[in-house]
Amino acid sequence: MKKLFNSADRMVDDMIDGFVAAFPDIVARGVHSRVVRRASPRPADRKVSLLIGNGSGHEPIAMGFVGPGVLDANVVGDVFTAPPPELILQGITDVTGAAGSILLISRHEGDVINGNGAVMLAEDEGLKVRPLLMYDDVSSAPKGEEDQRRGAPGTMFIYKILGAAAETGMPLEPLVALGEEVRARTRTLAAAVAPGISPLTGAPMFDLPDDEIFIGMGVHGEPGVGRHKVGPLRDLVGHMVEVILADRPIQSGTPTVILVNGAGGTTLMELLTVYREVGTILDARGVPHSSPMVGTFVTTQEMGGFSISLLTPSDEMLQFWRAPSTTPYFPAIHGA
Amino acid sequence: MKKLFNSADRMVDDMIDGFVAAFPDIVARGVHSRVVRRASPRPADRKVSLLIGNGSGHEPIAMGFVGPGVLDANVVGDVFTAPPPELILQGITDVTGAAGSILLISRHEGDVINGNGAVMLAEDEGLKVRPLLMYDDVSSAPKGEEDQRRGAPGTMFIYKILGAAAETGMPLEPLVALGEEVRARTRTLAAAVAPGISPLTGAPMFDLPDDEIFIGMGVHGEPGVGRHKVGPLRDLVGHMVEVILADRPIQSGTPTVILVNGAGGTTLMELLTVYREVGTILDARGVPHSSPMVGTFVTTQEMGGFSISLLTPSDEMLQFWRAPSTTPYFPAIHGA
Repeated sequence: MKKLFNSADRMVDDMIDGFVAAFPDIVARGVHSRVVRRASPRPADRKVSLLIGNGSGHEPIAMGFVGPGVLDANVVGDVFTAPPPELILQGITDVTGAAGSILLISRHEGDVINGNGAVMLAEDEGLKVRPLLMYDDVSSAPKGEEDQRRGAPGTMFIYKILGAAAETGMPLEPLVALGEEVRARTRTLAAAVAPGISPLTGAPMFDLPDDEIFIGMGVHGEPGVGRHKVGPLRDLVGHMVEVILADRPIQSGTPTVILVNGAGGTTLMELLTVYREVGTILDARGVPHSSPMVGTFVTTQEMGGFSISLLTPSDEMLQFWRAPSTTPYFPAIHGA
Repeated sequence: MKKLFNSADRMVDDMIDGFVAAFPDIVARGVHSRVVRRASPRPADRKVSLLIGNGSGHEPIAMGFVGPGVLDANVVGDVFTAPPPELILQGITDVTGAAGSILLISRHEGDVINGNGAVMLAEDEGLKVRPLLMYDDVSSAPKGEEDQRRGAPGTMFIYKILGAAAETGMPLEPLVALGEEVRARTRTLAAAVAPGISPLTGAPMFDLPDDEIFIGMGVHGEPGVGRHKVGPLRDLVGHMVEVILADRPIQSGTPTVILVNGAGGTTLMELLTVYREVGTILDARGVPHSSPMVGTFVTTQEMGGFSISLLTPSDEMLQFWRAPSTTPYFPAIHGA
């Protein structure tokens, strides 16, 4: 296996070692070595804390987004494995003060079970913590069953908007409501063109015919909704945007944010071309769009592919989306 | 070929369309559609302009680094092909005022010939422009023949440090001298573990045995200096740092900056682990290091691999390295 590690049992801890050493002004280990938290936390009695537990192997999400303006902590699980409830509890304990905290949970089975378990344990200890389920992948459950869908890269809208809102001192309940509203306004659809190599097995994570693209595959290779023949990108993107807008129509004149995420092995040249095609479609429909995010942020190792997420933000959401942040890997969002 | 394009003859222009549409506050097309320049240039009569021409296919470098604090313009060639002199001249003409400009040239044959040609054409038109050759790859020519080496990801130190210095109003000749001094203090060595797929041919760009890693390969697959058997990352990194330090020793106590660049398909988990190993070696030698850059910035499509660059900056260089910048893809450099 040509992955660049020292050993399978150290890969996650070596990565965290490198991460906290590289960015000591921003991040530090928590009490438990698998918790990454802000190096200079804001007083948790006056600011609601945001954290997430997730399996590693998808970096820079979520560890890379810890810092002022986004997350307060990330609980780092093994590769592709949700951290256990007791470990998530360590993260909650580290960052929860009188203002309370929100545990973001990207809706995948292990994350939901372990996240809810951790919230129960934390409540038993008298901590004020609220779970917020995140789901945005239109391919994983039908319209009307949105709460059965998977978390996908559109969850980054929630990280950033709640992160900026929490910095302003917004209390716990309005923050949860804001997160639910961002979720309601976000839809994502992904396409996979080539498998990533699992660092656990050294093998490709799925098989894909040479002339086919999977539509709707999840971030761990979960099955999607269909296949598409390889052809001009314009056709693929047109189909994907149609599926997203069929699920949640966007009226002409409604401000929209486009997020194009690369799965790992897809070049920025391709991602910018995807963005161009999405923008052209929205332009033709009279949908104004600004402040996009285009790059490789939620990965499945070196998987080839991308996702398109659309958010129709309120004015307040757009302001939070564009607010400055200081984390190792969340990009600056531009646009006035 | 599973690259996500509309057509081979439009791939570069489609990418630029997407790029300038995504970041309209920062970048715009120049007079020629293959020139990307700042949307709000500083007066070129008071500020020296920095630009570079290069083949595309390596994004985010260099197009992604246009903006306040780094580059004034990028002349975008075809994939893996230096732009012709006449096109580079268009970029020079766009951004050169009374303060003059510097054409950065990453030392590859086509870039050198076309860049020097463009400088001659610009001088014929009365423009004040100086070429600055960049070379940092220790594997491409022996010690003593540094000026025969290739440009490699360590050139990003020059982009950023000169970019920040130019913003302060530093005149042309001192800027060129500063660039030469950064160059003298930078060394890079790369390792390749898997080929990228050429978007021009659809084929892998080189062959590599399953259990071997190439040391010193260039950003277009140019041959390197040796092979290394796959094994613990620590051994590979130890060997690479040894080669770099044999070429240019760093004394204990000398402040150093580490740059770990991913070639495209190598995960951030791996790159952070590389950083950890380099840092551990420097720690053991009593070499203090700070403000690293770790991520995927100079790519060869989805090639697997990475490079290690070391810079021993002066106090002034370190300050410029850490200065804020506002470009679509140059990261914030942290560390006090």
